Amino acid sequence: MRPVILFRKILLTVLTVAATSTVWADNGYKLWLEYHKITDAAKVKIYTSQLGTTFFQTKSAQSGVAYNELSSGLIDMLNLKPVKVSSVKDGGLIIGTRNELRDIDHVIAADSLFERIGNEGYIIKNIVIAGRKKVVVTANTDIGILYGVFGFLRLLETQTDINKLNIVEYPRTMYRILDHWDNLNRTVERGYAGASIWNWHKLPGYIDQRYIDYARANASVGINGSVLNNVNANALILTTDYLIKVKALADAFRPYGIKVYLSVKFSSPIEIGKLKTADPLDPQVQQWWKDKANEIYHYIPDFGGFLVKANSEGQPGPQTYGRTHADGANMLADALAPHHGIVMWRAFVYDNNVPDDRAKQAYNEFKPFDGKFRPNVIIQVKNGAIDFQPREPFHPLFGAMPNTSLMIEFQLTQEYLGFSTHLVFEAPLFKECLDADTYAMGKGASVANILEGKYNRKLITGMAGVANIGSDINWCGHPFAQANWFAFGRLAWNPGQSSDKIADEWLRMTFNNDLTFVKPMKRVMLQSRETAVNYMTPLGLHHIMGVNTHYGPGPWVDDAGRADWTAVYYHKADSGGIGFNRTSTGSNAVSQYLIPVRDRFENLNTCPEKYLLWFHHVKWTYPTKSGRNLWNELVYRYYTGVDSVKSMQQIWNNMASKVDAERFTAVKQLMSIQYQEAQRWRDACVLYFQTFSQLPIPPGYETPAHALSYYRDQKFLMAPGIGGNQ
Amino acid sequence: MRPVILFRKILLTVLTVAATSTVWADNGYKLWLEYHKITDAAKVKIYTSQLGTTFFQTKSAQSGVAYNELSSGLIDMLNLKPVKVSSVKDGGLIIGTRNELRDIDHVIAADSLFERIGNEGYIIKNIVIAGRKKVVVTANTDIGILYGVFGFLRLLETQTDINKLNIVEYPRTMYRILDHWDNLNRTVERGYAGASIWNWHKLPGYIDQRYIDYARANASVGINGSVLNNVNANALILTTDYLIKVKALADAFRPYGIKVYLSVKFSSPIEIGKLKTADPLDPQVQQWWKDKANEIYHYIPDFGGFLVKANSEGQPGPQTYGRTHADGANMLADALAPHHGIVMWRAFVYDNNVPDDRAKQAYNEFKPFDGKFRPNVIIQVKNGAIDFQPREPFHPLFGAMPNTSLMIEFQLTQEYLGFSTHLVFEAPLFKECLDADTYAMGKGASVANILEGKYNRKLITGMAGVANIGSDINWCGHPFAQANWFAFGRLAWNPGQSSDKIADEWLRMTFNNDLTFVKPMKRVMLQSRETAVNYMTPLGLHHIMGVNTHYGPGPWVDDAGRADWTAVYYHKADSGGIGFNRTSTGSNAVSQYLIPVRDRFENLNTCPEKYLLWFHHVKWTYPTKSGRNLWNELVYRYYTGVDSVKSMQQIWNNMASKVDAERFTAVKQLMSIQYQEAQRWRDACVLYFQTFSQLPIPPGYETPAHALSYYRDQKFLMAPGIGGNQ
Repeated sequence: MRPVILFRKILLTVLTVAATSTVWADNGYKLWLEYHKITDAAKVKIYTSQLGTTFFQTKSAQSGVAYNELSSGLIDMLNLKPVKVSSVKDGGLIIGTRNELRDIDHVIAADSLFERIGNEGYIIKNIVIAGRKKVVVTANTDIGILYGVFGFLRLLETQTDINKLNIVEYPRTMYRILDHWDNLNRTVERGYAGASIWNWHKLPGYIDQRYIDYARANASVGINGSVLNNVNANALILTTDYLIKVKALADAFRPYGIKVYLSVKFSSPIEIGKLKTADPLDPQVQQWWKDKANEIYHYIPDFGGFLVKANSEGQPGPQTYGRTHADGANMLADALAPHHGIVMWRAFVYDNNVPDDRAKQAYNEFKPFDGKFRPNVIIQVKNGAIDFQPREPFHPLFGAMPNTSLMIEFQLTQEYLGFSTHLVFEAPLFKECLDADTYAMGKGASVANILEGKYNRKLITGMAGVANIGSDINWCGHPFAQANWFAFGRLAWNPGQSSDKIADEWLRMTFNNDLTFVKPMKRVMLQSRETAVNYMTPLGLHHIMGVNTHYGPGPWVDDAGRADWTAVYYHKADSGGIGFNRTSTGSNAVSQYLIPVRDRFENLNTCPEKYLLWFHHVKWTYPTKSGRNLWNELVYRYYTGVDSVKSMQQIWNNMASKVDAERFTAVKQLMSIQYQEAQRWRDACVLYFQTFSQLPIPPGYETPAHALSYYRDQKFLMAPGIGGNQ
Repeated sequence: MRPVILFRKILLTVLTVAATSTVWADNGYKLWLEYHKITDAAKVKIYTSQLGTTFFQTKSAQSGVAYNELSSGLIDMLNLKPVKVSSVKDGGLIIGTRNELRDIDHVIAADSLFERIGNEGYIIKNIVIAGRKKVVVTANTDIGILYGVFGFLRLLETQTDINKLNIVEYPRTMYRILDHWDNLNRTVERGYAGASIWNWHKLPGYIDQRYIDYARANASVGINGSVLNNVNANALILTTDYLIKVKALADAFRPYGIKVYLSVKFSSPIEIGKLKTADPLDPQVQQWWKDKANEIYHYIPDFGGFLVKANSEGQPGPQTYGRTHADGANMLADALAPHHGIVMWRAFVYDNNVPDDRAKQAYNEFKPFDGKFRPNVIIQVKNGAIDFQPREPFHPLFGAMPNTSLMIEFQLTQEYLGFSTHLVFEAPLFKECLDADTYAMGKGASVANILEGKYNRKLITGMAGVANIGSDINWCGHPFAQANWFAFGRLAWNPGQSSDKIADEWLRMTFNNDLTFVKPMKRVMLQSRETAVNYMTPLGLHHIMGVNTHYGPGPWVDDAGRADWTAVYYHKADSGGIGFNRTSTGSNAVSQYLIPVRDRFENLNTCPEKYLLWFHHVKWTYPTKSGRNLWNELVYRYYTGVDSVKSMQQIWNNMASKVDAERFTAVKQLMSIQYQEAQRWRDACVLYFQTFSQLPIPPGYETPAHALSYYRDQKFLMAPGIGGNQ
């Protein structure tokens, strides 16, 4: 009976394998908090022996979630469930506030250090007690402890040596805030990751686990505030029905140190208050806002405050009533002040009467009010003077309002950076602005230093990022877009950190610590923003994208409702050359910068080439630093950008064995889309600008696949990112 | 050195635990395909020894995905990676088409049985070869194999004995289709689970893993078609740009036996074809559709066909040109026929001129065309004559068109059943209709039998379900709403299955096999639809929900743009009584039913009380079967409904230890919302109808919390479910 014998033999070889489902793979939901199993045996041994016993008193909601996070992290990374001990002496890992560690605080740090870390900072250190080395995480407050625990887990996730710890961390800005441009109907303006994560209909009764995970992720990078709704605001958000929903979110976020803020519509007193006016000097209006603030704080005692887009792009505002931005902001500030709330008033304004240069308008409108705002008003200024372009010089308001609190507004969602199909790591973009020297107080007054309040310690400080978060399972639409959320938080905490370090951390936490993965992918990330600039808007070009949707190239856009919504307004290409003359012979926007910045931008020879066409109208044959003339340099940049995407693809293709299949495939597909879209940008722009330069594409470059008319005729009617006021 | 000694002792007790993260819990994404680890040691032993060797040839994409599914299921459930053997004799589990098992097919089943299972059915059986018992899964085709594998995995998931198998399964309807009311901008009409899962912007380049998982889930319950876009269609879907995207989805679905279909706008030849008319008798229009069909099939050779909402609720249609529904449907059918596509033409039509009784209109419009439709047209008829109400009698068109193919349209998304905050298991609703006897061919002509084509084997047959799927992580917004997707698929496959069996399967597959969980929760599910009817629309009431949003109660709605969009049109409450007289003394809608159904509904004494106010205007003091008068019975039903929700909550609260924390909390919160909303329904309706009955709420019932005006004044401006044509 040979078959039966065979059958028996085979049975012996049946495999029982470790259970890893092949159909349910890694979908990216866990962000940088995957807490991957650590496989390096030496590290596991060290970590396990040091962390097996924990002294951690958990008396508050905040320390409770900190303990849960620590516990989950250790289980997931090390299979380790530490024993909780009741005496400091017994713990290998000691976690507690200074108060809780009163007996040993002098061993940890001097008073001055505890003072320096303030309410949110923490210390992670090795100390020796009774002859045994310990790891201690301490802070002045429970929220400091939470940040400290996340910081400590990050050390393990990045497989850091825990025997030489001497870390002192504290945030350099006070308000580190995500702005959600989320509409109440769950559409998201400029959102490329699905619906809003806020399910207003199910609030307040249903607290989606996603809200908790959102708060965890924010806390893990030090973000401490969320503006829940779109700056193009719907007045309904201030009705009692919605405030009760907002309260539910605030309650869910509170243990993670996140305060909620709301975008408010300036005309709310009319729309939901039945008043006839929203004039900020009208006593009834003032009273309405005071009453509304009282109501809000009744529900949410630690409510953060308001974000306001007023007299901008059709939004109502104080100017509607002949009043000033200061009048409007101060009225709201007075309503919030008794409750310690703040007003974030956006400087992104431009008049309905199109000015000679939109880039100048925010400065012109706001500088005269320096020193006129209440102490709890902070002006929210975009990083550049136009609108989150792939590259802009820093906004001239930074350094121009020494007596006013300014916070910076970055855009994480990639409205102008390829939506969620382009891998663009934004930390270098943020850093370029943060590190720029304004010369406001002489050399060294970088934008970051101004934001940190180094020139006026009485000011409130902050950074805002327009969120790139939606209900896509992987949160941000592109696995690598998560890095921009992460980077924003890390830089809002400390603008001094490097893009390199941030990318390194994020890659290790999100994927793995394998250097054959981390090193090449870090290069990809660090190069990616310059790559996007090259294939979209090289040499200082800006605002040449598709009309309305802002999708894809649209350098030909010459009719968009108003001149400064077109592309031709900005690139001003003609047979003589290309670029916006913002020097003293042109719009003189350079005059808004301080000397020597102004002079550097004004002078064609000293103006950095990356800003060349931002500030200068340059003839096609102008010799650039590379030796190529302007036209050839422009072509070179566009083609280089596309080639860089191809290189990114090649590097990623080598990573198949180093990352999970689901995210590998997702990124591979997205890079392929990015490549096609980069080609479209290149071909459309080169062909379009060629109609002015009348110069040939130099030899060696492939010919665009289609004629210019093909690109002009392409229609993308359903690009995502649905408008506001909903 | 006592402290040190203590420290050492404690180290010994460090626990290394099985890794289950406490922060990342079960989010419901895996649906009923979790493949939970089987913990019953006896079962594991039997399964493992039988399934350790597999004969499974995988030559096609379909058998490839079947093998992957099997493999993943066995790994996840049993830690078992079976050895693939190349000879039938060596396998404990034999999987293959009849052709592949030619040597043993006679041992498995007779020719007639293979014939009966057709192209999609399968056989799962124990057979003995060379003295050894085997499990065999066979079919005529690869798709049959895929269904068979899912069927076999279901046996394991529900922990069935695999030593007495003799299963013959085949679908009773040909087209088992999900209709997605998804707009191209990712909003979803009547969608309560987030954005559309179709990311049109990223298609065709990006195939989201979710598409694959969607197809897997569908295939696992036998669904074989998807209408991708809203019946309130945007003509853009037929442009080449979108067809290329549709092709990408079709390619992704194909291995799972899912065909794609599109909703088409009747005026597409005008809107995207630049024609001046969409008249179905115009040769240019006919040619346009033929050309369009050719283009579609160029991209998608197995494209399923069109779904059409025409001349209904503002949609264009053949009547716009003085033509008939038959003219319109047949024109499209002629365009699709050469490619073997079908037209699903909706019978949900009602004229702009409000008729005496909207319930009669579909019948009146369609019955005259019986036999006039092309063979590849199937009329899609809602289960009832109004619109997916919590309870409706079966649609009189069933049984009225013996020479026309009819498919039923159920609504899985809970437009009228509490959105995604109410636990309502819809299988009993589906079954009530499917089991109803139309008497079309004498006794026994149930709706199901008509749908199965038992009275005319030449007809094509089908069932459609309006999908309840969105991009919420748990797909359907409510963990238990997944059961409605599951139930639809199971019933479309075989309408003869019981709600009990379906609930039992779903609970075991989705949660666990613990009888102390399955039994009580099955009771909850099976009772849940009657509960919702009680607190919303008892005794045959219908269409008394909030205007436009369809959220919450709105019995007072008397102004909604047209009479048959109001509530008062349907309940007709007055001092004399309540209900719509559809008998011969009223609208005579009963005449659309066949004898004896007609007589049973006509007669107040024989009309089932569940349909009482659907067919009769009944005086408040009418004595119902319970002995209570109508008013007291109505009150009793409303209060009973709310009490039943309370009971559901109590049962669920006992399940905390039996299910994962995330889903436990989610359902607990949702039930709490359901309870509040049930109370609002009850109080609003009882108080409103009391204004007519002028009778007191009987003693023993709690008094409504608010006055009627409170409920009438409540505004829900942002209820989810955004309208169509987008």
